[in-house]
Amino acid sequence: MARNIVIEALNRTPMEEQSVELVERKGLGHPDSIADALAEEVSRALCHEYLARDGVIHHHNTDEVQVVGGRSQPAFGGGEILEPAYILLVGRAVTRIDRQPLPVRRIAMRASRSYLKRNFTHLDLDYGVTLDTRIASGSSDLQGVFSAGKVLANDTSFGIGYAPFSSTEKLVRKVSDYLNLELKKDIPALGEDTKVMANRRGDTVSLTVAAAMVDQHLAGPGDYRETIRELVRRTSDFGQRLAGDRELVVKFNTADRPDDDLYYLTVTGLSMENGDDGSVGRGNRANGLITPGRPMSMEATSGKNPVNHVGKLYNLLSNLIADDIHKVGGGDIAEVTVRLLSQIGHPVDEPLSADAQLLMTEGSEVEVVRQEVAGVIDDWLDRIDAVTEKVMEGQLGTF
Amino acid sequence: MARNIVIEALNRTPMEEQSVELVERKGLGHPDSIADALAEEVSRALCHEYLARDGVIHHHNTDEVQVVGGRSQPAFGGGEILEPAYILLVGRAVTRIDRQPLPVRRIAMRASRSYLKRNFTHLDLDYGVTLDTRIASGSSDLQGVFSAGKVLANDTSFGIGYAPFSSTEKLVRKVSDYLNLELKKDIPALGEDTKVMANRRGDTVSLTVAAAMVDQHLAGPGDYRETIRELVRRTSDFGQRLAGDRELVVKFNTADRPDDDLYYLTVTGLSMENGDDGSVGRGNRANGLITPGRPMSMEATSGKNPVNHVGKLYNLLSNLIADDIHKVGGGDIAEVTVRLLSQIGHPVDEPLSADAQLLMTEGSEVEVVRQEVAGVIDDWLDRIDAVTEKVMEGQLGTF
Amino acid sequence: MARNIVIEALNRTPMEEQSVELVERKGLGHPDSIADALAEEVSRALCHEYLARDGVIHHHNTDEVQVVGGRSQPAFGGGEILEPAYILLVGRAVTRIDRQPLPVRRIAMRASRSYLKRNFTHLDLDYGVTLDTRIASGSSDLQGVFSAGKVLANDTSFGIGYAPFSSTEKLVRKVSDYLNLELKKDIPALGEDTKVMANRRGDTVSLTVAAAMVDQHLAGPGDYRETIRELVRRTSDFGQRLAGDRELVVKFNTADRPDDDLYYLTVTGLSMENGDDGSVGRGNRANGLITPGRPMSMEATSGKNPVNHVGKLYNLLSNLIADDIHKVGGGDIAEVTVRLLSQIGHPVDEPLSADAQLLMTEGSEVEVVRQEVAGVIDDWLDRIDAVTEKVMEGQLGTF
Amino acid sequence: MARNIVIEALNRTPMEEQSVELVERKGLGHPDSIADALAEEVSRALCHEYLARDGVIHHHNTDEVQVVGGRSQPAFGGGEILEPAYILLVGRAVTRIDRQPLPVRRIAMRASRSYLKRNFTHLDLDYGVTLDTRIASGSSDLQGVFSAGKVLANDTSFGIGYAPFSSTEKLVRKVSDYLNLELKKDIPALGEDTKVMANRRGDTVSLTVAAAMVDQHLAGPGDYRETIRELVRRTSDFGQRLAGDRELVVKFNTADRPDDDLYYLTVTGLSMENGDDGSVGRGNRANGLITPGRPMSMEATSGKNPVNHVGKLYNLLSNLIADDIHKVGGGDIAEVTVRLLSQIGHPVDEPLSADAQLLMTEGSEVEVVRQEVAGVIDDWLDRIDAVTEKVMEGQLGTF
Repeated sequence: MARNIVIEALNRTPMEEQSVELVERKGLGHPDSIADALAEEVSRALCHEYLARDGVIHHHNTDEVQVVGGRSQPAFGGGEILEPAYILLVGRAVTRIDRQPLPVRRIAMRASRSYLKRNFTHLDLDYGVTLDTRIASGSSDLQGVFSAGKVLANDTSFGIGYAPFSSTEKLVRKVSDYLNLELKKDIPALGEDTKVMANRRGDTVSLTVAAAMVDQHLAGPGDYRETIRELVRRTSDFGQRLAGDRELVVKFNTADRPDDDLYYLTVTGLSMENGDDGSVGRGNRANGLITPGRPMSMEATSGKNPVNHVGKLYNLLSNLIADDIHKVGGGDIAEVTVRLLSQIGHPVDEPLSADAQLLMTEGSEVEVVRQEVAGVIDDWLDRIDAVTEKVMEGQLGTF
Repeated sequence: MARNIVIEALNRTPMEEQSVELVERKGLGHPDSIADALAEEVSRALCHEYLARDGVIHHHNTDEVQVVGGRSQPAFGGGEILEPAYILLVGRAVTRIDRQPLPVRRIAMRASRSYLKRNFTHLDLDYGVTLDTRIASGSSDLQGVFSAGKVLANDTSFGIGYAPFSSTEKLVRKVSDYLNLELKKDIPALGEDTKVMANRRGDTVSLTVAAAMVDQHLAGPGDYRETIRELVRRTSDFGQRLAGDRELVVKFNTADRPDDDLYYLTVTGLSMENGDDGSVGRGNRANGLITPGRPMSMEATSGKNPVNHVGKLYNLLSNLIADDIHKVGGGDIAEVTVRLLSQIGHPVDEPLSADAQLLMTEGSEVEVVRQEVAGVIDDWLDRIDAVTEKVMEGQLGTF
Repeated sequence: MARNIVIEALNRTPMEEQSVELVERKGLGHPDSIADALAEEVSRALCHEYLARDGVIHHHNTDEVQVVGGRSQPAFGGGEILEPAYILLVGRAVTRIDRQPLPVRRIAMRASRSYLKRNFTHLDLDYGVTLDTRIASGSSDLQGVFSAGKVLANDTSFGIGYAPFSSTEKLVRKVSDYLNLELKKDIPALGEDTKVMANRRGDTVSLTVAAAMVDQHLAGPGDYRETIRELVRRTSDFGQRLAGDRELVVKFNTADRPDDDLYYLTVTGLSMENGDDGSVGRGNRANGLITPGRPMSMEATSGKNPVNHVGKLYNLLSNLIADDIHKVGGGDIAEVTVRLLSQIGHPVDEPLSADAQLLMTEGSEVEVVRQEVAGVIDDWLDRIDAVTEKVMEGQLGTF
Repeated sequence: MARNIVIEALNRTPMEEQSVELVERKGLGHPDSIADALAEEVSRALCHEYLARDGVIHHHNTDEVQVVGGRSQPAFGGGEILEPAYILLVGRAVTRIDRQPLPVRRIAMRASRSYLKRNFTHLDLDYGVTLDTRIASGSSDLQGVFSAGKVLANDTSFGIGYAPFSSTEKLVRKVSDYLNLELKKDIPALGEDTKVMANRRGDTVSLTVAAAMVDQHLAGPGDYRETIRELVRRTSDFGQRLAGDRELVVKFNTADRPDDDLYYLTVTGLSMENGDDGSVGRGNRANGLITPGRPMSMEATSGKNPVNHVGKLYNLLSNLIADDIHKVGGGDIAEVTVRLLSQIGHPVDEPLSADAQLLMTEGSEVEVVRQEVAGVIDDWLDRIDAVTEKVMEGQLGTF
């Protein structure tokens, strides 16, 4: 069946040339990211379990996690956790196959604890978190749609993606990863809970980072300030290489008020230890960023099943398609936005419409690339199950 | 102090002329809307209590609510609730003034139950919902920023608003309210849980409505189908007046599969009765819509304190400003987008920047309106506390 | 089949002649009594529902309820609830009959809320209590034993009962009921949470009552003291009639410390409002008393299914049998203790043994009554299902 | 001050000579024992923390724990956990000293998890249990009584103890420990959840053991039956040495129904994995046994603070006193029962009364031992704080 694919030119100032740009990324330890991560870990673990037991992935959407902040009393040299955070895993999943029960809640617990253990160095799971689950089976209706032979869209919904990242977007993404994955090895006082916000005005990029600092690695205010300076220095060095000719101004923990003895100090490097709550879908979009100047979907991607939930599939897929379109365009395509619109109950590889809006570079014409672009879309829809696989293998981030 | 206000022209195809438009609204009974509503009700109740007891509004953010779906067995003629939904109120609030405790959790419980009672006709609060609360005081840091004399921004964040609504956006908003507030009086089988999605392609608007039907008012499949037909008829009549010359196609409950005996049937008119979960910030934006083609903020507006939380204030305010700018523009301004960017720790009435991007009508120039537009912005920032008041009085919706 | 019934004489000082006697009763509003009551209400509601739907009572044991105290700030003239108490209903029940789900949790919620409404005047259910339930189906093993055709004992366990009540026991029981059912009508400041403890030494009975007082009905310390005096007076008058020639000394709220402004003051008349916790089986025995000088079973009676749970059946039954034995004895039997021992998997009407230990009055011989006593036991075992019925109809208290 | 000590003779058939005796002990892994253990572990951990931080033990009663059974699917060769058990720690504790917060909930979590880890071989804490806590500070009243300089009784309550154990009681206690501590080393299929019940009729002792078997160590029904036979053999050998001349009949898992494929099989050796609930105070008394033929207190001993909670102190103390009285009596005292009655608000070492009831051996007179017995009581009351210390050091069991 011929798909309903539309390619059109878009007339707009490219992001790089707009005078103001806002980009944000919540790091791995942010409560909203933790919620996203657990939702996704649980879904992936369920996928593997369903496949192992029954050869197919069954219906589930574990896309609701509530992180309720605990209470702590950080102090230079080492403070203490007063009470655990509380994390409630919610969602729906098939809990029975051929009348045999499936250990959905056990799998959810184990996948979640395993993730927390692997990722958060200073979080003591013996008392730092109460992990509870109210995941249960859903309405028969939802299950019905899913168990049909062909993969049918679970909802009337859409996905949106674009390419390429602007240089500020790249900057935010890379700085965030640099902090979470590299710098914390060198600077143990740097916690996993970070938030990187870039505000570009013309050619000046202000990068404001909020980073939870780990108290046991900081002897006192002097040490704290020295460490912050080190963080600014290292982040500036790293960032400037990405920012190129633009001016980069880096600040850390601007809400500190040394006169009142207020620092962003934590016991675990995670603000959820002391009252910061989080939920799925409140943080980064599927491409890892929050970009108010870009088209975005409100759908939470994390935790949704990667088989027929178009809120997940189409958001991930439209980003993949946009990337490939940008690549095939060579230098002709400045920016591309891809939108996929589903129809509930129709096959996921036959969207109601698939649009690509192309912002061409000076002198380039849509017509030259139209066929190739359509081919990219068609091709990806043909092998939409590759998205499912990539999600299962953890090759596609959702936040 | 002179504010940093920027007015610039925007070059873009107006929404009405774009070929594709997607607009969605989750109705009052949608689980995400219930989460939003309770978050906001609790915040408002706390505002009033703080004011009554201490003359000022104290720090709080009750912007996290987890709705965990219950279990039911709907049936034509009247089915039954099997187990209650579980709603967990989360968030942070000052729980002590001058060493006197404040009944934060009691207030949260009462405000929430009262809202549920007033809005959901078929929900029996004796067994339909378990309402639990883990709202507690937050970190001293957050409280510190707030208790300062002048109102300082709680975060580095931004708000985005635009005006006017496109006719499709108006349509969705009005149809949704029509269903929730008017039609359900005439058609008792119509539940409060609705989702209205418009997909405009050129001059054809497809309006797809998912509406939870109340089983006790439907004798059987025939009755159900007849009621759906009535809903389509009434909604089409109502909607066509708003759609004007465009063609309007209305569908209800397209996921029904009569052959498999699957209908969107509920006991209470609320899908949370049977496994549908919800959280704050997952549904409508502050203007009551989900509009992927428009600039949007990811911030959840509901439940945040209306005094210094810029994620709330600036989103509400930028919509108010955009409305007024559009009005003062007479016919000259086709569309306007307003963006407010805060600086943590700085006064909320002194944003780091306030931008208005004007899409002028054919032949109009920005210069003509620049001063007036800047005046609107300046004026609103001068009386930013009016936003706080409007929120408290329930005059500004947040979802 | 001939039952294994043993009648033997017991040589012991009768309770009335012992020099020390301790008797206690926790009133209706005591957190342990609330836990017992809800457990029993839920079980009774389930019995009725099972019968109505399937003609038989299905397996269940809802004999675990955790009351977690809330927080309040009582004050003369009217204080306030700060946060709700939390009540968790736990237990096991058949949740499915012929693959049709049963609304076990809904029934549990409704029965519990209904009980709280009916019994506790000042408890506002909109915010005074969070009622949660984790009742679920049990292990297949337990269900197996129960679903067998004939009613088989669920456990190897025993029941113990005695008769008659000593006059001190009668006194405690009647004073407790007088406070909960009569006096509170005249004295609205008297809460439902009472504890009556009698300590008889020779012919002096000290009656110590702890009674939660309702703050809104007491203007100040003077009013409080006056009300306490009134309570002492009324209770003494009432009790003296029962105490006969013995000296009765009545005290209320002996832990008050007026000098430190400490009174047993509450908002609701229930100590669970402010940190007092409770659970099933921690309070009164099946006969409504705590009597350390008497043989007692540790089994919690409340909430157990009244069909095959010998921990419930045999405790209730042995009290009924003891009562009847005492009656048929005329004046010959001073005291009787009845013990029933079950065998798991054997019919409940065929206990492993049924013993009656008779303390005969001066000059009376066991032989004279042996046959009649055995008849009473035999007769009751023949119609053991009458116990089930009485429980269901609420004619047999369990705490 | 002279204490009110009463020593009197008791005329009664000694337990060894009574024709029927019932004795029970719930083993370490029984849900009620787990609840007791966690309550006590938390209390002990708090005692140590209070002492370390402030030099004194502060008020707390963590004597409420609700174990909500999980769900599992055991199978020969190795089944699986389906969902975690849920354990809710409840109770009251001072959470603030000199305005500094104390990590009460963290301590409770850690102590509990540590206990579970140390004691239950097959329980995987990553998914086998959700550990939650709602421990909070209590009413000011309770705290008031406690913070007074001298240690005052928290309640009007009593404790009861007796000595010596009958040989059946010793048998039950030792067999239970033998199973939990010794035999499980040799027989890995033997779980920690055991219940030992002895029913002595004359000189025949029937010992019925319910023991949760660990599925992964049992290949099939044959293996199971063989293991049960081994358990019977080993337990009979061990028990017969204690039973002396009496006939001992040992049975295991009498509720098994091989024809229906029903065995007492578990994944973890703990019945809480599959729907068995438990709470504090529902199992063994302070002396480790349930003895319906003996005087017993209803008070839950576990989790109560060991400083002023007479429900704990007096029950432990009366057992210690009874032991020592029996010892000083040489062969003259056959049995002794000790009762201690407190007065709320009075020093714990000055009970309202302390009674010892002596059942003398043939030919012995109370007068001969009266003074020595009174001395034992006096002496123990003089050093009542030794009880507190023993509890803290874990030298006195409470269940």
